[in-house]
Amino acid sequence: MELEPPNNPRAGRLFASDLLDAWPALSPEERIEGFRLLAPAEAEELFLGLDAREQSPLLLGLERAERQIWMRQLAPDDAADLVQEAPEESREDLLALLDEPTRKEVVALLAYAEDDAGGLMSPRYVRLRPEMSMDEAITYLRRQARERVETVYYIYVLDTQQRLLGVVSFRELFVAPANKTVRDVMQSDPITVPEDLDQESVADLFAQHDLMAVPVVDADGRMKGIITVDDIVDVVEEEATEDIQKIGGTEALDAPYLEVGFFQMVRKRGVWLAILFLGELFTASAMGYYQHEIERAVVLALFIPLVISSGGNSGSQASTLVIRAIALGEVRLRDWWRVLRRELATGFALGALLGSIGLVRILLWPARERLYGPHYVLVALSVGCALVGIVLWGAVAGSMLPFVLRRLGLDPATASAPFVATLVDVTGLMIYFTVASVILHGTLL
Amino acid sequence: MELEPPNNPRAGRLFASDLLDAWPALSPEERIEGFRLLAPAEAEELFLGLDAREQSPLLLGLERAERQIWMRQLAPDDAADLVQEAPEESREDLLALLDEPTRKEVVALLAYAEDDAGGLMSPRYVRLRPEMSMDEAITYLRRQARERVETVYYIYVLDTQQRLLGVVSFRELFVAPANKTVRDVMQSDPITVPEDLDQESVADLFAQHDLMAVPVVDADGRMKGIITVDDIVDVVEEEATEDIQKIGGTEALDAPYLEVGFFQMVRKRGVWLAILFLGELFTASAMGYYQHEIERAVVLALFIPLVISSGGNSGSQASTLVIRAIALGEVRLRDWWRVLRRELATGFALGALLGSIGLVRILLWPARERLYGPHYVLVALSVGCALVGIVLWGAVAGSMLPFVLRRLGLDPATASAPFVATLVDVTGLMIYFTVASVILHGTLL
Repeated sequence: MELEPPNNPRAGRLFASDLLDAWPALSPEERIEGFRLLAPAEAEELFLGLDAREQSPLLLGLERAERQIWMRQLAPDDAADLVQEAPEESREDLLALLDEPTRKEVVALLAYAEDDAGGLMSPRYVRLRPEMSMDEAITYLRRQARERVETVYYIYVLDTQQRLLGVVSFRELFVAPANKTVRDVMQSDPITVPEDLDQESVADLFAQHDLMAVPVVDADGRMKGIITVDDIVDVVEEEATEDIQKIGGTEALDAPYLEVGFFQMVRKRGVWLAILFLGELFTASAMGYYQHEIERAVVLALFIPLVISSGGNSGSQASTLVIRAIALGEVRLRDWWRVLRRELATGFALGALLGSIGLVRILLWPARERLYGPHYVLVALSVGCALVGIVLWGAVAGSMLPFVLRRLGLDPATASAPFVATLVDVTGLMIYFTVASVILHGTLL
Repeated sequence: MELEPPNNPRAGRLFASDLLDAWPALSPEERIEGFRLLAPAEAEELFLGLDAREQSPLLLGLERAERQIWMRQLAPDDAADLVQEAPEESREDLLALLDEPTRKEVVALLAYAEDDAGGLMSPRYVRLRPEMSMDEAITYLRRQARERVETVYYIYVLDTQQRLLGVVSFRELFVAPANKTVRDVMQSDPITVPEDLDQESVADLFAQHDLMAVPVVDADGRMKGIITVDDIVDVVEEEATEDIQKIGGTEALDAPYLEVGFFQMVRKRGVWLAILFLGELFTASAMGYYQHEIERAVVLALFIPLVISSGGNSGSQASTLVIRAIALGEVRLRDWWRVLRRELATGFALGALLGSIGLVRILLWPARERLYGPHYVLVALSVGCALVGIVLWGAVAGSMLPFVLRRLGLDPATASAPFVATLVDVTGLMIYFTVASVILHGTLL
């Protein structure tokens, strides 16, 4: 299938891709109806292409016989995800659709948190004993490969206690001389992950070592399952989405935008918006503190939005860059000092840039005397100098806050960027009025 | 290797993981020195664990003989990435280190843009002819598997013109009866990608179909190489990083934070900061327009930072959510109307929430009469009503801007969030003063 077939020969029939296209706009009933119109192969493509969140209501809308057919199409880890997405009261029914050995596997997987290594793994991997000859190994593998295993790319060598002794790639086994045993060709001491490692760390490990699969072991070194790299693509997207949403100043939605209900959407956004608003209330107090300065020199008020938003933008930039660098492991907690030095230099340069633009803008504005009064040069100087300080402070505060949050054991992404903007707004006002009162002392103030 | 081995038996020797830990803090010379101290297996782990950006200077710091050994460790696609990262004048030298067939492969790959399917693919895949019997196929595969191929997970069936006829998984081949031919067991009409498809679309395809590998074909259907899912993990991280950095209001850094030079950092951030500053200058003009109102009622100035930052936060939230939903394909261009309706409702609810908090804060503040004057109730009402309008407007503008950018053929992530904040600041001031002049008409104004 080309991505865009030149002359589409399918016109007139309903295809999985068409239905998938319309999916977000359809009601649950329409989805089920559309699904029933698909030819079997198309239905399979659609069903396996959905994620568990969407498979679950679709499945529950079908007849029991159909439901069983689809449920049995799923690998145990996917079936576990689907059951987890189903309402509490339907879970037992869904589990009952599975054959007994799969049901046991799925129940075992349900014990793990969804975001842990255990929740990502498949219990269906290919295993061998170390003392097998190459011939025995190939025959045994052939038998295992007939069952639905997740991947035959890596084969795991276990002792009788199910402890992981080593790993051998299919290719290595395939080209090894017949007189060798599995133990001779396996690599011992393979990379493993514990069952309860969180999925973000698992993804980092995959990225760092370019792995195709990794075995999951319990505290005693017994193998529990494997995680394959195709599941990691979803994890990486999911984690990036969470970080982006947090950077945007909202709780992670945990669902596609259009699928989140109205009240949940208001709650997830309202909580953070209200917290930021409460922080921002300090600007009203700060402004009240400088009320006399504003009364005496209303001209100062004109530049307040300009000055504080520049600090906010500078702070958002710095915090976003540092949050992402921490998430990617490019910057560690102990690098805070190097980051601080960089941001001091960068922040000063950026502040000087914006300060100069601001200065020039006021000095050269046609109506400068009428708008800004006879002391417009001093006003320009106040704005320019305040900008240097505020942009610098934004960069420093923005880059250090993620370290502080991390040090406190919190997620650095949690609303850092807008939080920085709010922090910088309040302190920015203080910097602005302090600078202005020094420069304008004796003239306007 | 457990992630954290209980009693580390390695103390006293230098390991790849230790060096990798210190890597960001080391100078280029120290990196080379450290690399030379590693035992061969550790050096290999380190070298293959680095990405091309870091491999390249390391390699160029070594002796020619060593350089050749390491260069020949690389798969052709990785070698091409490394050459692309090297300075122009060293590229020929690096290519000359390769053996002739690999050099040809690498040169062919260098013709592709780094961010296209062609730039991601490996030319080393396993291929079969359709008329082969199972026995022939297995023998032929065994020979190919001895060479360094990227994966044996999928095997591609080509005609004599190198046109892709079908794909067969290793497992299917392995368990097929001996009297079948490759054509009998292969799946025809496999999913393919064109050479020039951008990497983001390739990644979407992997995520959607849970693929392990995908073949790349040219316009005539001739197979050029394969892309494996482990490369996609890097693509997904890279694209998410770009989006996050753009949302944070900076150009994509295209390099780890600590590796970006001072002047480049200032340029990448300064350009956007200056653009936003120029936009924000309109707030000074808007404020100038309302100067008389401010002079007559300085109390109005006190709430300016509060009011406009709330609009900015609401706008950032909405634009971030919509940008990510568009990037994930959850929301398409034609869904703008559904998004608008949602944001109208959500924005109104959030505005009412913040407006009520603001109203109550002013009405119940102990020093309300001294600070806000005898008309404090009307002031509170002005702030509250303006907040409803501004937060609502922030949500609407923030959610629609990504659609506008996308419609214009631009990347919705490009500085959307701070751009929205700036837009909302200017219009927010207008909303605030308009509401205030209606409510306070005849009393303060």
